[in-house]
Amino acid sequence: MGAPCLDGTSFHAVNPMTEQMPLPGFADIMAAHRRLNGTVVRTPLLRAEALDAAAGRPVFVKAECLQKTGSFKYRGASNRIMQLDPAERAAGVVAFSSGNHAQGVAAAAHEAGIAATIVMPRDAPQVKVRGVRCRGAQIVFMDRHSEDREAIAKAIAQERGAVLIPSYDDPQVIAGQGTAGVECAEQLRDLGVTAQALVTCTGGGGLTAGLALAWEELCPEASIYGAEPEGFDDHRRSFAAGRRCRNARLGGSICDALMTPEPGRLTFAINKERVQDALVADDDAVRAAMRFAFDHLRIVLEPGGAMALAVALERRVPGSGPLCVLATGGNVDAGTFAQIISGKTEDD
Amino acid sequence: MGAPCLDGTSFHAVNPMTEQMPLPGFADIMAAHRRLNGTVVRTPLLRAEALDAAAGRPVFVKAECLQKTGSFKYRGASNRIMQLDPAERAAGVVAFSSGNHAQGVAAAAHEAGIAATIVMPRDAPQVKVRGVRCRGAQIVFMDRHSEDREAIAKAIAQERGAVLIPSYDDPQVIAGQGTAGVECAEQLRDLGVTAQALVTCTGGGGLTAGLALAWEELCPEASIYGAEPEGFDDHRRSFAAGRRCRNARLGGSICDALMTPEPGRLTFAINKERVQDALVADDDAVRAAMRFAFDHLRIVLEPGGAMALAVALERRVPGSGPLCVLATGGNVDAGTFAQIISGKTEDD
Repeated sequence: MGAPCLDGTSFHAVNPMTEQMPLPGFADIMAAHRRLNGTVVRTPLLRAEALDAAAGRPVFVKAECLQKTGSFKYRGASNRIMQLDPAERAAGVVAFSSGNHAQGVAAAAHEAGIAATIVMPRDAPQVKVRGVRCRGAQIVFMDRHSEDREAIAKAIAQERGAVLIPSYDDPQVIAGQGTAGVECAEQLRDLGVTAQALVTCTGGGGLTAGLALAWEELCPEASIYGAEPEGFDDHRRSFAAGRRCRNARLGGSICDALMTPEPGRLTFAINKERVQDALVADDDAVRAAMRFAFDHLRIVLEPGGAMALAVALERRVPGSGPLCVLATGGNVDAGTFAQIISGKTEDD
Repeated sequence: MGAPCLDGTSFHAVNPMTEQMPLPGFADIMAAHRRLNGTVVRTPLLRAEALDAAAGRPVFVKAECLQKTGSFKYRGASNRIMQLDPAERAAGVVAFSSGNHAQGVAAAAHEAGIAATIVMPRDAPQVKVRGVRCRGAQIVFMDRHSEDREAIAKAIAQERGAVLIPSYDDPQVIAGQGTAGVECAEQLRDLGVTAQALVTCTGGGGLTAGLALAWEELCPEASIYGAEPEGFDDHRRSFAAGRRCRNARLGGSICDALMTPEPGRLTFAINKERVQDALVADDDAVRAAMRFAFDHLRIVLEPGGAMALAVALERRVPGSGPLCVLATGGNVDAGTFAQIISGKTEDD
């Protein structure tokens, strides 16, 4: 355990696996953008008058729920897997993930004809489990609260000589996620819009880091914000402390995709210099954002995927100029979604 | 009443209002495409491995549920309203619609600063009623079974000197809908794909006509198919008879957007020469298509909006080459949607 953090949780020890890795830069993101051209879906930037009215500013929603596998995670996984050498391809890949990175790795590996093994928490949404299984990957289940999925994945990788594809703390994974930022920068430019801010959900911080690196060059006027569930505000506390802080708990939010223990080492090194702050909203705000997206954008968002929209709708993002919101994933079980959209809304 | 049709329903008398109207052509569609550039959303063409597997062919879904107002109807309404002269603008517009054209007209009129009055069936989904009301249009309700909404709308237009914006039987409305066809032709070309067929839901036939005119020039290899709910197969019967046949009933399908009494006069004149056939699927197939779109495309489709996807999933579209499917609208009440996606599916 390291030095104590602001609120008593601890500064995590350095991970020797990622310590020596170089930080990715803008050139890596543009290389990924060229590499993934034709492989990833160029997801649309959605608008709705009702959204602008509710958020009190022009809002542009980058709908990554429409990405292959239903989340942005396919970008980073593909960018990493496309660069494996022949020996690595033959050995196969291993990943640990609550479900979206799992599907991204499974799909990218399937497309490349590479074997994939995924370590997933036993309580992952069924839609995510099915999404991994139908792409031919092997699943190893673990308990979110009592077991260390990273350790399990590393052991499997070591045993099989397979390549571990980290869900965020990897330069090429971060570069792949950053391609979403290149796209929305281009889409905003085509609309003649200069964004004042961008907000994205923050789990391990890989998407945030990729977006921050892309926008530092392409939209330098904009402030970058993270968005986290109440109780999982590790980035907010880490930014305030200037070093990585852990969350006190590992479960208990409806945002199954965002219950990461702490910021990544690489991602935090990038984000602490480039991200203004991380903003927090509770599960009720996330449910309201899912309903709003159903009613006014006609997209399906999972709880974690609606996190950034939730802080935008709660008007927590500073400023009143054009705001770009990442809607990061749409993998949610039908029963959960049905229950959430059936909740009473103000105009019903 | 005119001559009897194949199954005993009648050939509809010529509507004097549309009789003298010229048919739109490809040049009108390209003019609309230029006119609407920057006004309409260039909706994405979505893919899913699971969809290709289920349909038995490569499928490309044009997601018009992501269009402004949640359906393609905004295209035609905007194209018509943008060409009103100052006197017409001052007089305002009137429309009759089950809800999607209503919202399209309300939004286009609102953007142009023009007063709009909409005649809607009393049983229209609440989300459609709210979508019209929040755009400042006045609503006149009528009974779908006992009243003639067209006659009511015409009386209002005459009384106020306002311009009636037909939901399909109008050259500029057809041309506006056709811009969706120009977009997906361009998007398929960018992907290097030559479509073998296109399938779209068919109510009055305006979108079908616009698409058929656009694809006749841009994708001449493709066959065009309509898709209709069981019991509302007026296009199928009309194509077989070579003249317009009416539906026996005016209500009773979950596809609230597709219960049009008969093909339009202009639209049928275009479609009978260019559309291969109209394909039919029942309400259960439509529900299954809505669930499929939720699970695998992460879009919200209303029943009518899932009609073409339903016939694709039921493998009713001839051929096995690339198929373009229009997903035309996503305006569905939360309770209805929740109930439909919660229905048991094969893999649950």
